[in-house]
Amino acid sequence: TVLIMLSVLFVLASLGSLIFEKLGIPGLIGQIAVGIIVANIVWDGGSFLGLFDVVMPAEGVSASLNYNALAIISEMGAIFLLFCVGLETRSCEIMSVGKPAMYVAILGVILPFAAGISLYFYDRNIVHAMYMAAAMVATSVGVTAKVIMDLKASNTKEARIIIGAAVIDDILGMIVLAIVSGMTSNEGLSILSVLKVVFISVLFVMAVFVFCQRCVPWLASCSKKRCDAGKDSGKNIDKAVFAIAVCLIMSTISQALGLAAIIGAFLGGMMLADYAEKWNLKVTIGTITSFFLPFFFLNVGMQVKLSSLTSVSVLMLSLYVIILAILMKYVGCYIGAKISDRTMDRKSAHIIGIGMIPRAEVGIIIAAIGIATGHLTSDMNAVIILMSVVTTIIAPPLIGK
Amino acid sequence: TVLIMLSVLFVLASLGSLIFEKLGIPGLIGQIAVGIIVANIVWDGGSFLGLFDVVMPAEGVSASLNYNALAIISEMGAIFLLFCVGLETRSCEIMSVGKPAMYVAILGVILPFAAGISLYFYDRNIVHAMYMAAAMVATSVGVTAKVIMDLKASNTKEARIIIGAAVIDDILGMIVLAIVSGMTSNEGLSILSVLKVVFISVLFVMAVFVFCQRCVPWLASCSKKRCDAGKDSGKNIDKAVFAIAVCLIMSTISQALGLAAIIGAFLGGMMLADYAEKWNLKVTIGTITSFFLPFFFLNVGMQVKLSSLTSVSVLMLSLYVIILAILMKYVGCYIGAKISDRTMDRKSAHIIGIGMIPRAEVGIIIAAIGIATGHLTSDMNAVIILMSVVTTIIAPPLIGK
Repeated sequence: TVLIMLSVLFVLASLGSLIFEKLGIPGLIGQIAVGIIVANIVWDGGSFLGLFDVVMPAEGVSASLNYNALAIISEMGAIFLLFCVGLETRSCEIMSVGKPAMYVAILGVILPFAAGISLYFYDRNIVHAMYMAAAMVATSVGVTAKVIMDLKASNTKEARIIIGAAVIDDILGMIVLAIVSGMTSNEGLSILSVLKVVFISVLFVMAVFVFCQRCVPWLASCSKKRCDAGKDSGKNIDKAVFAIAVCLIMSTISQALGLAAIIGAFLGGMMLADYAEKWNLKVTIGTITSFFLPFFFLNVGMQVKLSSLTSVSVLMLSLYVIILAILMKYVGCYIGAKISDRTMDRKSAHIIGIGMIPRAEVGIIIAAIGIATGHLTSDMNAVIILMSVVTTIIAPPLIGK
Repeated sequence: TVLIMLSVLFVLASLGSLIFEKLGIPGLIGQIAVGIIVANIVWDGGSFLGLFDVVMPAEGVSASLNYNALAIISEMGAIFLLFCVGLETRSCEIMSVGKPAMYVAILGVILPFAAGISLYFYDRNIVHAMYMAAAMVATSVGVTAKVIMDLKASNTKEARIIIGAAVIDDILGMIVLAIVSGMTSNEGLSILSVLKVVFISVLFVMAVFVFCQRCVPWLASCSKKRCDAGKDSGKNIDKAVFAIAVCLIMSTISQALGLAAIIGAFLGGMMLADYAEKWNLKVTIGTITSFFLPFFFLNVGMQVKLSSLTSVSVLMLSLYVIILAILMKYVGCYIGAKISDRTMDRKSAHIIGIGMIPRAEVGIIIAAIGIATGHLTSDMNAVIILMSVVTTIIAPPLIGK
């Protein structure tokens, strides 16, 4: 039945993507829409067309086998997407936009977080407000990257700043989460644990950059000799296997260090960026991504429970949070782009501001942690998820303009 | 932790494959060997290097999440492998070897089954003997196909006969299983249920062949016009998505009809065989396969529990079953090849006989059903699994000769 579920979902997601693309809307929104429909409408009483039973984790019940399979495959989708983005990102190019990316990321984190704290006045609970604010912080590298790839704009300066800032801002998101969970825990905030997160992430990223500049060219020259000596056919697939191994190892290291697996996947892709063209990785790894990725966007859509959005107060809160999340991110990143680089024109800063809006998975993950630790109510979880999905849907059409 | 497990296993399997290939042994044997090592030696007390806990289903306990994830991914490996094989198999070519393939398949099923019934004298239990015999019947299309692909012999007449016969013999295996489980059930053998399996499988395969010859060229000419009108880049990946959808749908239909999913995957690949080259599917789908396939062979190896192979009587039984399984399959297929085609020389018949020996997954699946229904003892399960693995390991070096 897992096979049946995956087949049905893959076909539905592909159709959704196709229909939306015909209408001129990015395909990923179609996949999210299919996810919302599957989870809310066709999904009658936990059984999708009678084909399989699913208990959504949002309901607090432990997830079923089918849902777990979907969650794993959707995580692989995010990992391979970020790996693909890494493949198109040379480390020297990211370093060349290091300063603006850093400014954009930092201001794009501070403004939404500060604004999110205003949610204290919703139910006078500072813990709730801090978790909501933390969930509003991190841009989804995945969605942003996919939009940029679909626009074939990966090689523009704006795209590089957005990707760089989104990666930094994911790391900042982890740091904010560490601070918030430290402050709300019984033991209070431990400076040591925050410093640990900061130290590990900076060290990891720097190590990869050094590795990219020093070791990769040397390793590649070694393997080149060996490969040239071998037989010719099947080479591209052998190299794809090597690339997959790099992707999985880097994701695992990143997760083991307490960072998100997708950050490791991105850095792993960057390690191989110089060889992406030569080794035909765009096609080979791109195909793997195209298999897994629809499940990722489906899964984002499936988190939306329309039934929890019927009360007026929740709807009002959602509207407020969505407006805050869009506006503060846009303003923060716009200002960050302008301050960091005087020569940057308004249009570039605008594109960067829009490009940083989508939240997608990171917000949902933080909300899930908040629910699990009892620091968020289920209504607030629904609000965060809706915010994540709306910011994801709203950005692609705007950035294309 | 699922991600960590998958990464570790993928890297280990790739290394195993690489080392064995350096030694001149097919890589899949290396992957099986890694599976045996992981499951038996490093796997100390159900915890692999402390990274993850796994309860093997062979122990009768319900499988854990990690194991389920591995089982699903390994099933995807088998499905995509058969799809790849289908992509290299044109329906007209299979039809041209229809008669020899049919003879090889039928004699290759009857002889091992008849010989397997002699196991009645092991413990004077006819139900045990029938299940053991049923598990000895079906050749693994997957392993055979991979060996042929590695030898780059897909376009030879022998390869076509082997693949055709292996697919037919999988269907015959399902029919034998239906007969055996009918005969051993309390209601006794129902002619109707056997006829149903025969009818459905013949109808399904015929429908696909008709579809291949009539509809595929017409559909492709339609889609060609549409594609040419669209933009050029990303085309290969779009076509890969279409191919993936065909693969998943056909596997699902096959499973829903009560046949093995891999049969549907093979037929689905055959539907697109004429376009495999043009659409670059060998590279794109080949990459997906190279991601999933190591997990399939790992999983085959992980089924071997060395600890259950310590008693002398089990070892003797294993030896007898293995010799029977190899000899009867070889003789049956050799005779089948010779009878069906007078012009066939001894060398071709020999290659076909050897090529049909590997059992791998089908035997293990039937043994699992036998255990679940109480028709096999756990010792017999271990014997079947060892037989499956040994026949898998023994054939590739022999066929290369």
